[in-house]
Amino acid sequence: MPIKPVLGVTMGDPAGVGPEVVLKALQSPPPGCRVIVLGDLAVLQETAARLASYLHPYQWQVGDALPTDARQIPVLALSQLAQTERIPGQPTRAGGEVSYRYVENGVRFTLDGALDGLVTAPISKAMWQAAGHAYPGHTELLAALTDTAEVRMMLDGSPPSFLGDRSEPVEGRGGKKPLRVILVTTHMPLAQVPGALSCERIAKTITVAATHLRRFYGLPQPSLAVAGLNPHAGEAGAFGDEEQRLIQPAVERARSAGCNVVGPLPADTVFVRAVRGEFDAVICQYHDQALIPLKLLSWEDGVNVTLGLPIIRTSPDHGTAFDIAGHNKASPNSMQAALRLAAEMTQRTRTAR
Amino acid sequence: MPIKPVLGVTMGDPAGVGPEVVLKALQSPPPGCRVIVLGDLAVLQETAARLASYLHPYQWQVGDALPTDARQIPVLALSQLAQTERIPGQPTRAGGEVSYRYVENGVRFTLDGALDGLVTAPISKAMWQAAGHAYPGHTELLAALTDTAEVRMMLDGSPPSFLGDRSEPVEGRGGKKPLRVILVTTHMPLAQVPGALSCERIAKTITVAATHLRRFYGLPQPSLAVAGLNPHAGEAGAFGDEEQRLIQPAVERARSAGCNVVGPLPADTVFVRAVRGEFDAVICQYHDQALIPLKLLSWEDGVNVTLGLPIIRTSPDHGTAFDIAGHNKASPNSMQAALRLAAEMTQRTRTAR
Repeated sequence: MPIKPVLGVTMGDPAGVGPEVVLKALQSPPPGCRVIVLGDLAVLQETAARLASYLHPYQWQVGDALPTDARQIPVLALSQLAQTERIPGQPTRAGGEVSYRYVENGVRFTLDGALDGLVTAPISKAMWQAAGHAYPGHTELLAALTDTAEVRMMLDGSPPSFLGDRSEPVEGRGGKKPLRVILVTTHMPLAQVPGALSCERIAKTITVAATHLRRFYGLPQPSLAVAGLNPHAGEAGAFGDEEQRLIQPAVERARSAGCNVVGPLPADTVFVRAVRGEFDAVICQYHDQALIPLKLLSWEDGVNVTLGLPIIRTSPDHGTAFDIAGHNKASPNSMQAALRLAAEMTQRTRTAR
Repeated sequence: MPIKPVLGVTMGDPAGVGPEVVLKALQSPPPGCRVIVLGDLAVLQETAARLASYLHPYQWQVGDALPTDARQIPVLALSQLAQTERIPGQPTRAGGEVSYRYVENGVRFTLDGALDGLVTAPISKAMWQAAGHAYPGHTELLAALTDTAEVRMMLDGSPPSFLGDRSEPVEGRGGKKPLRVILVTTHMPLAQVPGALSCERIAKTITVAATHLRRFYGLPQPSLAVAGLNPHAGEAGAFGDEEQRLIQPAVERARSAGCNVVGPLPADTVFVRAVRGEFDAVICQYHDQALIPLKLLSWEDGVNVTLGLPIIRTSPDHGTAFDIAGHNKASPNSMQAALRLAAEMTQRTRTAR
């Protein structure tokens, strides 16, 4: 019997919904995979106690041992927070420090091969900064720790949710394919987006996306579309020239490099075309262009995937939600989807070896 | 028995899909209403002949007479195009001229009270320009002809379509409400949007929207949301200041004027909240912010509504589609929805009198 892949899941900020969604998600662990939690044992035990009527009783296994049955949760205890640092909804500098350490260790273990992939629960950027770690988020830290120059954010809407039931045999809601969006630019004022776009940046996004989908999604020749920046993709220059000046050349460059890609296409129809089956993923020029359709089709269970890293990394697409932490209100759907997707990616790379 | 309201529907560019979608839509005319076509009799007859196996045979009534049964189509013949000017897919200057004239007459009849509302099939901006009418589209012409300073475009996604079946009792797909979006800015390069926004323009959009929904939709106190411009609605200024500088003050101003409005809200979640029942409409800062979610939820049957005019005007949200004109490929869904919505609006104003 082959050894099952092992995923690490970081607990995230101790005062956020991370511990809760991790424990809830592990009620139905991803198939074909084992999961170890990188976090704080006391926080996890207290969270489990609060959720007692919701969760089946866990047996805790501390250290890097792996569970012998599904009710055992192996915890790599990387911190021992004091009681005042374990209060849901009350983030602390110490919580920022330890949540940073979980990720740092998780990356190290994954680079070393002890873990096959990493799933991260949400952290607080403000608490990381309070603890002296000036990264805007996971992605930048992961790039730094793995010495990666260019990473991109993908959101994968594979498991369709609120717009309909979950009984459909096909992946995408109402369509033939799930929506997957990859961002050329991420968190910046909209006014800065046009200046931040370049032919290089767009072309790199296309090739990173194609490489990832080939390697981890089992798509030998993924079909990609690139959205335009302007209304009607600029309508031949009538409403802006970024399409002709930057996007079209980038698409041609990526095509010369062997990518199966079309564009720029009008942003108001490209997502419909994608879920109807035309495209495996859509390259988006800015944050809301990607996130509006993604959240509309995959509310609460989209998965954030970092492309371009030498390791597998996914995360839920929500934040720490300090306002609802400790109240058993957080949905584990996105975390569950993140675990499942990481598990699938791990298995595909194993097969490819 | 009260006299039924009468809608005028302009045929649009003779070489586009306008005549086809008008005739197809009139197979099931909107209830409680009579419809008269403003167009070219020969074009309509030839279109009907081409669609013979699809359409039931029409009796044509030329002039402003109204039909005595559903199979009669009253046509106000405002042009007599030559044979070479009636070829589907081959737009002409003459077609631009007559399609302009249909709208001009339609507006005049509606202002005079001979028509209760106007529905317009798509025209070609290029052919209008070739004919010497330098309007970018219907909306600007309607504003000029009715002497209206400020109009806004609303897209109403009431009849849900591709994401699911049509059997649902509630209006919106998977939610409690249909998606309706109103645009602060429309067709301009994205780079110009931040500079085009102003507190006045946003506040005016909110009040025009509230007035319209009160008057024509039977919503005494419509619930409105305003989307932010930047990712996460700027995250308290971290990604842009338009929310604090322009949108927030505009929302406060509109609220002081009695509008039930909240915002700025993050654009990636506001549409989900709207269709789940929180908001009757969402005010959007730019074209794709509004059109991406609208087309995703109401592919092929969204309706374009002009707000701020002294007359009722709707239109389908597609263009002339010269490439498929004459091939019986055009879907009448959006035209049908535009007729139905205009009919409902007419009946509501009549009731209010």
